[in-house]
Amino acid sequence: MNAELLAVGSEILIGDICNTHSQYLSKQLALLGINLLRHSAVGDNPLRLANSLKEAKDRSDLVVITGGLGPTKDDLTKETVAQFCSLPLENNLSAQKRIENFFSKQNKAMPKNNLKQALIPKGALIFENDYGTAPGMAIDFDQTIFILLPGPPNEMIPMFEEKVVPYLNKFSDSVILSHNLHFFGISESKADEKLSSLLSQSNPTVGLYAKEGEFRIRVSAKASTKDKCEKLLRPTIEKIKEKIGDYLYGVDCDSLEKVVVETALNKNMEIAVAESCTGGMISSKIASIPGASGCFHCGIVSYSNDIKQDILGVDETVLNDYGAVSPQTAEMMAIGVSKLAKADIGVSVTGIAGPSGGSEEKPVGLVYVGIATESEVKTYKLLLSRGLPDERESIRTRSSLFALNAVRLELEKLSIKQ
Amino acid sequence: MNAELLAVGSEILIGDICNTHSQYLSKQLALLGINLLRHSAVGDNPLRLANSLKEAKDRSDLVVITGGLGPTKDDLTKETVAQFCSLPLENNLSAQKRIENFFSKQNKAMPKNNLKQALIPKGALIFENDYGTAPGMAIDFDQTIFILLPGPPNEMIPMFEEKVVPYLNKFSDSVILSHNLHFFGISESKADEKLSSLLSQSNPTVGLYAKEGEFRIRVSAKASTKDKCEKLLRPTIEKIKEKIGDYLYGVDCDSLEKVVVETALNKNMEIAVAESCTGGMISSKIASIPGASGCFHCGIVSYSNDIKQDILGVDETVLNDYGAVSPQTAEMMAIGVSKLAKADIGVSVTGIAGPSGGSEEKPVGLVYVGIATESEVKTYKLLLSRGLPDERESIRTRSSLFALNAVRLELEKLSIKQ
Repeated sequence: MNAELLAVGSEILIGDICNTHSQYLSKQLALLGINLLRHSAVGDNPLRLANSLKEAKDRSDLVVITGGLGPTKDDLTKETVAQFCSLPLENNLSAQKRIENFFSKQNKAMPKNNLKQALIPKGALIFENDYGTAPGMAIDFDQTIFILLPGPPNEMIPMFEEKVVPYLNKFSDSVILSHNLHFFGISESKADEKLSSLLSQSNPTVGLYAKEGEFRIRVSAKASTKDKCEKLLRPTIEKIKEKIGDYLYGVDCDSLEKVVVETALNKNMEIAVAESCTGGMISSKIASIPGASGCFHCGIVSYSNDIKQDILGVDETVLNDYGAVSPQTAEMMAIGVSKLAKADIGVSVTGIAGPSGGSEEKPVGLVYVGIATESEVKTYKLLLSRGLPDERESIRTRSSLFALNAVRLELEKLSIKQ
Repeated sequence: MNAELLAVGSEILIGDICNTHSQYLSKQLALLGINLLRHSAVGDNPLRLANSLKEAKDRSDLVVITGGLGPTKDDLTKETVAQFCSLPLENNLSAQKRIENFFSKQNKAMPKNNLKQALIPKGALIFENDYGTAPGMAIDFDQTIFILLPGPPNEMIPMFEEKVVPYLNKFSDSVILSHNLHFFGISESKADEKLSSLLSQSNPTVGLYAKEGEFRIRVSAKASTKDKCEKLLRPTIEKIKEKIGDYLYGVDCDSLEKVVVETALNKNMEIAVAESCTGGMISSKIASIPGASGCFHCGIVSYSNDIKQDILGVDETVLNDYGAVSPQTAEMMAIGVSKLAKADIGVSVTGIAGPSGGSEEKPVGLVYVGIATESEVKTYKLLLSRGLPDERESIRTRSSLFALNAVRLELEKLSIKQ
């Protein structure tokens, strides 16, 4: 079954919103084993929409259309599809009741134009909308299925997962299953080189996706069942682990900070954070994970020498002799914060995020990360500038990720605290 | 001039990346006064790409294509366009030299396959790539212009702005100019109600765009010159300010944190931050602004009662009697951090971000924000849950924005510190 997506909405064409539905639906259709061959977006224009429907019908067995099901005059997806398929629009009493209930439950009067949303092309299958007023629908027309979904993500996504997936499942005889392996500390090109033989294989496929400072490898297999997919995936994943497993921080995990929090909780360890150039980003990443309060109690943003001295206890002589951006300062910040918080691991970052503040000796992008545990203190020197403009956020992000990974590696070496 | 976008890459169709280029380029083309009528994306498949080129040529005067200019065998955009336009590919010596230099500057050997990027369709205009190896190009073929741009955003965006905009300017006889008005503290629906008469006007148009916790209004005018656009825009902007100007925090400004940092620097004031549930997010937002070190030296993440007591000096009895999530604690945190940092304004946040930790009396989403200056202390109570799943990040973000806006309002009241 070959499919394509069609997003409808002028706000997409003027760039006011990003068509993120296309990514979401692409992933979902892949999971269903449906070949997706094209994305399109057109404005709220009936003629151009009708042309798009014609082209899509000629190419595809399934066309998933998002947007244009609202109550206003601009919303014309359903009307245009009905006309294209020569189907009359009929008022659907059960749809009307649902819309009326949606408003009465909130003690609101239903605006009259919402009644338009109860008009359904004759013979269409309705997907009820549990989160809004526009029903979705499937129209089977001359060997092409048109699926119409509402534009708001909080309506479209649950409708797709709860109603459309069961409907589409019957058209597919295979599933696609993927696992994501997450890496830190090895460059994409280095990984590419080590994995070159795997990157060209076909089932499972191996894809490499870089993100700021880290990357993931997605291994995807297609087979008739999930179990068969797993069997196909296993040997490839093992081969990847053999080659670059030292840099793997998780499989199908959400983020480095989640792995750090989970590992700290498992080891019964507490982390404390002292940040200069990252300015709270490491703390905030840790705090973003539910349950982080079990392993994280204290973060200090010391954005001046005074605060480094007064709160973290960095020696004035160290600051004077070596400067705030130095391994010595990073070391004392990490020790200082772990003592202050009575934590098991102190992590610190001090560096020059730019755009100003750099010198020949200490350029923008120079960052020191410190790690202090009961038994040892270590520092890492990073040079994070790539010579591009506007690197401040990138330098801060990559420093934060490096620090989190350093904490993770340290935690892994430590045994569970009793 | 009617235009369309075409993104090339299988990674888009399986949902591994979001086609964010389409939003960026849509905005850029709107600024140039070019009508954009369609977005498409296709995979790395020469036949389907060739079909897309044909369809696009039939519809549009300008087709902007992104992706598929890399050095690998999969990258076939240039080859397919050349074939479609019946143009031979020729090695371009100057392009080759630039690619060789790109590697030699980094002391790296050039992989042989990068030479493929120096092949240019005969007669194409080259857009040099200052941030990578793939040159962009414009091909004028039978009344349609094809513009080919590299896929990586850090190459595509500067190339578009520095090379393609001057090239396209000559095709447009009008400009579209927009101003963005940024608001905090009024709901989108309330603003919609107050501005309803303006929202339906046509030149300038008025659009309302909500983001987590804040929203902006975009006012856009189309005219023959920038000055004429400005003249059209002024009365509408004034009307908006009359109606909801109390909630306006900036015009064409990047973010609330930027306004806060700029205002603090102008007023010669220093801000200190004490965070519980936001966990460093406020500090990190402030630190993301270049020059923030001029007004921000100290942030404390106090994620436990001990740290609130030991570092911020919150009374044990306050914590015992009222709890960590209380106006009393927020007040003492704000006072404590401003004293600790010798800052002019202390801001604090303490709350329950969830998913666990809530109770009937203190539900998830209950957040207190404290503000302490030399002359007064105040607290705000927020109820931020909307009863949706996974609200932790949303509650943290909206708490952070509220706190930043409270700092901004406070700064505005204060006179410049001598």
